[in-house]
Amino acid sequence: MSQFTHFDARGNARMVDITAKKDTHRVAEVRGEVVMSPATLQLIQQGGMTKGDVLGVARVAGIMAAKRTPDLIPMAHPIMITGVNVDFKFAPPDRIEIRAIVKIDGKTGVEMEALTAVSVAALTIYDMCKAVDKSMRIENIRLVHKSGGKSGDFIREGEQPWEK
Amino acid sequence: MSQFTHFDARGNARMVDITAKKDTHRVAEVRGEVVMSPATLQLIQQGGMTKGDVLGVARVAGIMAAKRTPDLIPMAHPIMITGVNVDFKFAPPDRIEIRAIVKIDGKTGVEMEALTAVSVAALTIYDMCKAVDKSMRIENIRLVHKSGGKSGDFIREGEQPWEK
Amino acid sequence: MSQFTHFDARGNARMVDITAKKDTHRVAEVRGEVVMSPATLQLIQQGGMTKGDVLGVARVAGIMAAKRTPDLIPMAHPIMITGVNVDFKFAPPDRIEIRAIVKIDGKTGVEMEALTAVSVAALTIYDMCKAVDKSMRIENIRLVHKSGGKSGDFIREGEQPWEK
Amino acid sequence: MSQFTHFDARGNARMVDITAKKDTHRVAEVRGEVVMSPATLQLIQQGGMTKGDVLGVARVAGIMAAKRTPDLIPMAHPIMITGVNVDFKFAPPDRIEIRAIVKIDGKTGVEMEALTAVSVAALTIYDMCKAVDKSMRIENIRLVHKSGGKSGDFIREGEQPWEK
Amino acid sequence: MSQFTHFDARGNARMVDITAKKDTHRVAEVRGEVVMSPATLQLIQQGGMTKGDVLGVARVAGIMAAKRTPDLIPMAHPIMITGVNVDFKFAPPDRIEIRAIVKIDGKTGVEMEALTAVSVAALTIYDMCKAVDKSMRIENIRLVHKSGGKSGDFIREGEQPWEK
Amino acid sequence: MSQFTHFDARGNARMVDITAKKDTHRVAEVRGEVVMSPATLQLIQQGGMTKGDVLGVARVAGIMAAKRTPDLIPMAHPIMITGVNVDFKFAPPDRIEIRAIVKIDGKTGVEMEALTAVSVAALTIYDMCKAVDKSMRIENIRLVHKSGGKSGDFIREGEQPWEK
Repeated sequence: MSQFTHFDARGNARMVDITAKKDTHRVAEVRGEVVMSPATLQLIQQGGMTKGDVLGVARVAGIMAAKRTPDLIPMAHPIMITGVNVDFKFAPPDRIEIRAIVKIDGKTGVEMEALTAVSVAALTIYDMCKAVDKSMRIENIRLVHKSGGKSGDFIREGEQPWEK
Repeated sequence: MSQFTHFDARGNARMVDITAKKDTHRVAEVRGEVVMSPATLQLIQQGGMTKGDVLGVARVAGIMAAKRTPDLIPMAHPIMITGVNVDFKFAPPDRIEIRAIVKIDGKTGVEMEALTAVSVAALTIYDMCKAVDKSMRIENIRLVHKSGGKSGDFIREGEQPWEK
Repeated sequence: MSQFTHFDARGNARMVDITAKKDTHRVAEVRGEVVMSPATLQLIQQGGMTKGDVLGVARVAGIMAAKRTPDLIPMAHPIMITGVNVDFKFAPPDRIEIRAIVKIDGKTGVEMEALTAVSVAALTIYDMCKAVDKSMRIENIRLVHKSGGKSGDFIREGEQPWEK
Repeated sequence: MSQFTHFDARGNARMVDITAKKDTHRVAEVRGEVVMSPATLQLIQQGGMTKGDVLGVARVAGIMAAKRTPDLIPMAHPIMITGVNVDFKFAPPDRIEIRAIVKIDGKTGVEMEALTAVSVAALTIYDMCKAVDKSMRIENIRLVHKSGGKSGDFIREGEQPWEK
Repeated sequence: MSQFTHFDARGNARMVDITAKKDTHRVAEVRGEVVMSPATLQLIQQGGMTKGDVLGVARVAGIMAAKRTPDLIPMAHPIMITGVNVDFKFAPPDRIEIRAIVKIDGKTGVEMEALTAVSVAALTIYDMCKAVDKSMRIENIRLVHKSGGKSGDFIREGEQPWEK
Repeated sequence: MSQFTHFDARGNARMVDITAKKDTHRVAEVRGEVVMSPATLQLIQQGGMTKGDVLGVARVAGIMAAKRTPDLIPMAHPIMITGVNVDFKFAPPDRIEIRAIVKIDGKTGVEMEALTAVSVAALTIYDMCKAVDKSMRIENIRLVHKSGGKSGDFIREGEQPWEK
């Protein structure tokens, strides 16, 4: 099972040794979606324009969660991320798209931080709307782009640009 | 926007007042999936049987994350969950199903705790396998069943029993 | 030094034993202020009405901090607060007033949770505005009202009602 | 609202990108006060000299809180502070002055860490004395001095030296 | 492996379901030791009497750690402890004895909280003295007494009373 | 008391200033033991081979705890460890040996992180087995080896190699 770097030769989980790696500029972009009833989506849209800002709270939650990644993911290294953006896009009739971009000048990538930011932003949307819609689903959380580090860049095929 | 209980009359986010609610037995069941390449799934299956137990680590991460829910979700109440199970099922050729069941004897439901447990278990699977497969996706995280409390039971239609 | 309950007879700090106390409904209200230049206050007011919502972020930070109180204050008991509100009021030309109300059905009071919520909301306002005004001051954080529990109610004299 | 760097062009909160900034030696000094009845101040003074050391506990709380700053302040960067001092001075008849000095060799300043250390030290004094004095107030938390980084030094006018 | 309640019938780790258990008064007492060179012990004793209070800091650390137990021990339930005492005794020529007593009115015992308090108090003593003595050892951390709950009381044989 | 670097000249605890220190590669190895009844040891051994993996859970707990060290130990610096291994060895008839190795490229040593990892792994073994054996003891937690940094290497005399 040597392909899974998070295990040693005897199969024991470990935090991979990155001591000798160099600091490089790294970026990761992750996206995901919350699917809901059209009526719920409309309530959120109205709130964002007037008052009761679901997405404002979810953005703060996502940014803070990126910082908690090493507390949540057992083998994740403690790292000092240097920038986080969490954005949302309404995709009527029934979904909200979420995007997180995380940056670092460090020894390891930040895809886990971006995945955690999107996941917790999605969970927060669920939490704030669950009184009106318990059927919401969190969908399609995936790494869209990653750059920096020795393993080279990753670009997921078939993704649309975020801003039109 | 009175339908969203997490906002007051002026649209300001708040932690909903549950002081006067009674303790009742409550249960929530949440499921989700990690979709990956068939080769990655086979690596995880082999590890689980011999050594390098991805799912064992993900289970611990999910259970611990359930306890961290109030630290992550801004308006979630601090609560004392009384039981957590996190389970996995291989769904060849390309996915792992995750299920969390959370219990409490308390004033509020535990769906956020179960959703967080599944989300962090999924993120941990991603983390431990990302060296071999960056294209994995987290899919279909949803509340399957909920009981206890004044708002009544919730059963998502069309779900299969977990164990056959 | 027997008056300080957080020390035992030999002067050693301890978490006071509340095992035998009964659960009662308790409320605490705390207020405080951030004093800044009139220009900074105007920038925040403009943002709140259009975009760039400093107070929205500070409210989330204050509510989340109330939940972290036992992690921060060494002798504070871990408790399950059942409701938190954090509000703001512009007091031109140069200050923002902050108010937190915290509720519980528990064995001990929640003034520390309300004090922590106001303190962290104030710190967050400072953080978000420090690029334009490093001279801001946090002022007058005080318990305004407290009810529930054996020691009786506390009402600070000379306080104005929050809403006029 | 471009002056507030914690918002992007559309007014969405973000963790400011500091990836490209250089590590420099930085220091921040923050002060604040807890105002109380003269009788309470005397109790604390007596305890410090014989037993029941309120300020010893508050110092530990302040130092530990400096490390928790990124968990509490939503847009604060995770950083590795390299030194913290928290000191106290009796200012009879009715107040205790608190000072925190925080140091780092890093990409961003440490004023939030020093402000958090003073705030939590003050809250801890309140907590340990609240059984005898609920009227205490936390006052005048302010940045006194800051050096290092591109934006230049900050020295608040009119401050007295800490040690006479 | 049914004797280990933290595993289900298939051997998967779980947080044991205590939903149906009743709240009862429970107490746990744990003790442990830090063994060091006689010279190090003398330095700590001198500090405690005059200034530089190693044990004062270790006591705060132990009390705070008791509250963090569910964050550290994967299958431990989140609980609301209602009292903690951490005490120290010099045992010349070469050791410090540590004792923690934790109380609760709850559904499960508090021996893990008391064990964690003693462990972290011991680690803190090590940390504060390691510049002068790297050979210190943490020894004999054990449950001395436990009462409350359905499984009955536990009293370790051969233990001396703490206070003579 | 100048020998204890964690206190200033007046005996006040502080986080030692390491701002000016250089990053160097550092490693620390810590070992400890959990002593139990032979019957308990056999149950754990059987579980590890078939199902109910006590040591797998304890390993995850130890690795995660290494990352929480600055949250637990008051004067410990926040640092970014770059690798952690936690291993176990059965020492029949009545004990399990634990070893943690922690690495960093940083300004300060990692012995506290390794000591914390071993302590929490031992506590987790206790937690998972306490239903069958409350008499277990945690023994002999000690630094075995340390390298890197200005103070030179430390090798404890009389230790056996971990792997034979």
